[in-house]
Amino acid sequence: MKTARDCLINVEMKALRFEDNKLKLADSAVPRRAGEALVRMTMAGICNTDVEIARGYADFRGALGHEFVGVVEESPERSQIGRRVVGEINVGCGQCDLCRRNDPRHCPDRTALGIRGRDGAFAEYLSLPPQNLLTVPDVVSDRQAVFTEPLAAALEILDQVEVRASHRVAVIGDGKLGQLISCVIARTGCDLTLIGKHDAKLEIAARAGVKTAKLGAAGIVLCSEVATTKSPGFDFVVEASGAPGGMELALDLIRPRGAIILKSTFRGAVRLDTSRIVVNEVSVIGSRCGRFETALRLLESGGVDVESLIAREYPLAEGVEAMAEAQRPGTLKVLLTN
Amino acid sequence: MKTARDCLINVEMKALRFEDNKLKLADSAVPRRAGEALVRMTMAGICNTDVEIARGYADFRGALGHEFVGVVEESPERSQIGRRVVGEINVGCGQCDLCRRNDPRHCPDRTALGIRGRDGAFAEYLSLPPQNLLTVPDVVSDRQAVFTEPLAAALEILDQVEVRASHRVAVIGDGKLGQLISCVIARTGCDLTLIGKHDAKLEIAARAGVKTAKLGAAGIVLCSEVATTKSPGFDFVVEASGAPGGMELALDLIRPRGAIILKSTFRGAVRLDTSRIVVNEVSVIGSRCGRFETALRLLESGGVDVESLIAREYPLAEGVEAMAEAQRPGTLKVLLTN
Repeated sequence: MKTARDCLINVEMKALRFEDNKLKLADSAVPRRAGEALVRMTMAGICNTDVEIARGYADFRGALGHEFVGVVEESPERSQIGRRVVGEINVGCGQCDLCRRNDPRHCPDRTALGIRGRDGAFAEYLSLPPQNLLTVPDVVSDRQAVFTEPLAAALEILDQVEVRASHRVAVIGDGKLGQLISCVIARTGCDLTLIGKHDAKLEIAARAGVKTAKLGAAGIVLCSEVATTKSPGFDFVVEASGAPGGMELALDLIRPRGAIILKSTFRGAVRLDTSRIVVNEVSVIGSRCGRFETALRLLESGGVDVESLIAREYPLAEGVEAMAEAQRPGTLKVLLTN
Repeated sequence: MKTARDCLINVEMKALRFEDNKLKLADSAVPRRAGEALVRMTMAGICNTDVEIARGYADFRGALGHEFVGVVEESPERSQIGRRVVGEINVGCGQCDLCRRNDPRHCPDRTALGIRGRDGAFAEYLSLPPQNLLTVPDVVSDRQAVFTEPLAAALEILDQVEVRASHRVAVIGDGKLGQLISCVIARTGCDLTLIGKHDAKLEIAARAGVKTAKLGAAGIVLCSEVATTKSPGFDFVVEASGAPGGMELALDLIRPRGAIILKSTFRGAVRLDTSRIVVNEVSVIGSRCGRFETALRLLESGGVDVESLIAREYPLAEGVEAMAEAQRPGTLKVLLTN
């Protein structure tokens, strides 16, 4: 027997779509995929990747968005229905070597929510396999849970390199991701410096006890303490500026045999003197998505303050305006609500 | 009491110098540095780095050359005198943190033979600190010993990453360094493919039992076996092509989370879509000089055939012609004799 709710879900929905090189709020079919769960989005976060996709990065067409918290409306796993969830964004083919080794994040035929071959979370509803969904603990609010995906991406760094209390670490980029990375890395007790361009954003990190350095217009770090430490430099430099110039600065700051962790994705190419990597035997480590479970546990423990990174909330219906706000220089996290 | 030999050494010497943007055989003072040994060069090898320096790479001015074997004529360590030696090319300041941690190779104030602040080995005599010199075992000929430096650079890779028999490895570049790297990596028992442009050079590797693939003019690997393995790709790709296009090909061939070992140094910048590094979580590891001791032991054991890589020998007096030959596409190792 169908209920009123079923009927509601079966009608079309609103979604913020990138199509024909334009961003628009459009009527779309509710996304139902065989064997998957249907999630009603309650809150979604705009990431720099969304902004880049709307500039042509990743050649994606469809509903944007991959940071969300929502409620399960339908699922083949009936125990999930009604639960408040976040979701891993990558869905592997399930057949290839990588999927069989439990690494769907790198499956060559994967889809990724709002990034690759799969409509995203800037919509009333989204579809993901049941195994991608994680229940949000009651003590974690929607405004916190919506940071699970970028927080997991920040935590991925600590899965890739071992940062010890004796290490000197620089994070380039005082934006949303740079701030989260800074929060996560500060917890190791290392000697951390956040390098950015915006006084107000650097102030957020400074309040959390992180050292900061201001980047000048010419890309010069306006902080004698950082400048004088160019030799021998930082043990780790995380490049999260989201801009092409970040990599060159990272090479200026890293010590010989140090590791640069590369987080920025954007459209276009970087001109790079790769012999600097060779001569100094630097490692450059690409870093993308991380584990949601660890991120949720960290939010549950209150170990990071993510709410201070929220700039503003917009209803989904004002998604185009929200995206415009998100790409304004200096804006922190813009959220969409449904 | 001075001997006839002393008088000989005190006169000026011939050296192949890069100065005023020109390569020339010039009369130079015999290089004597306080506390260092004086070595009479008997054989020297021309490396791609020398060719690049003569194009402006590294802003070096002076006598070129860093691959050599020679005989110690003078040394504060008297037991070295008369010995046949090879020499570590980097000389640290001895004072900084890195030098104190026994890593003069990355000292910011280091000199490097024929590369940075120190006249090189394409000369009748060269100067290095006694501790940089290693005695060549009798069973290793000059024509083998002259490969110690590039062989050490190849072996450095195995100090940086652990290549196992189960791994699939590609080496890009069938030149001198690519061939040495291929020899060294083949010894791990891994599934190895050497990718190059020159039939004759690929043939050398094929004779040693290494799989080879030919690179077409458009940068396409003309080997269905390699092409079909793009997904999931190679566990390790060593980029030793010496050309800007090598890095892009390496990114085509590497599997997600694989490691690219970067060996090429050249003048100028590469245009690189760094988001490919991020999305596939690839590591790019710069790799330069290696340990001479390990290389000498490998030559002593007969574990690698380096002599098949020799193209031709020239007397030092014909150094300019030798350099012209070395930079001709397809030429293998050109040697200078004294």
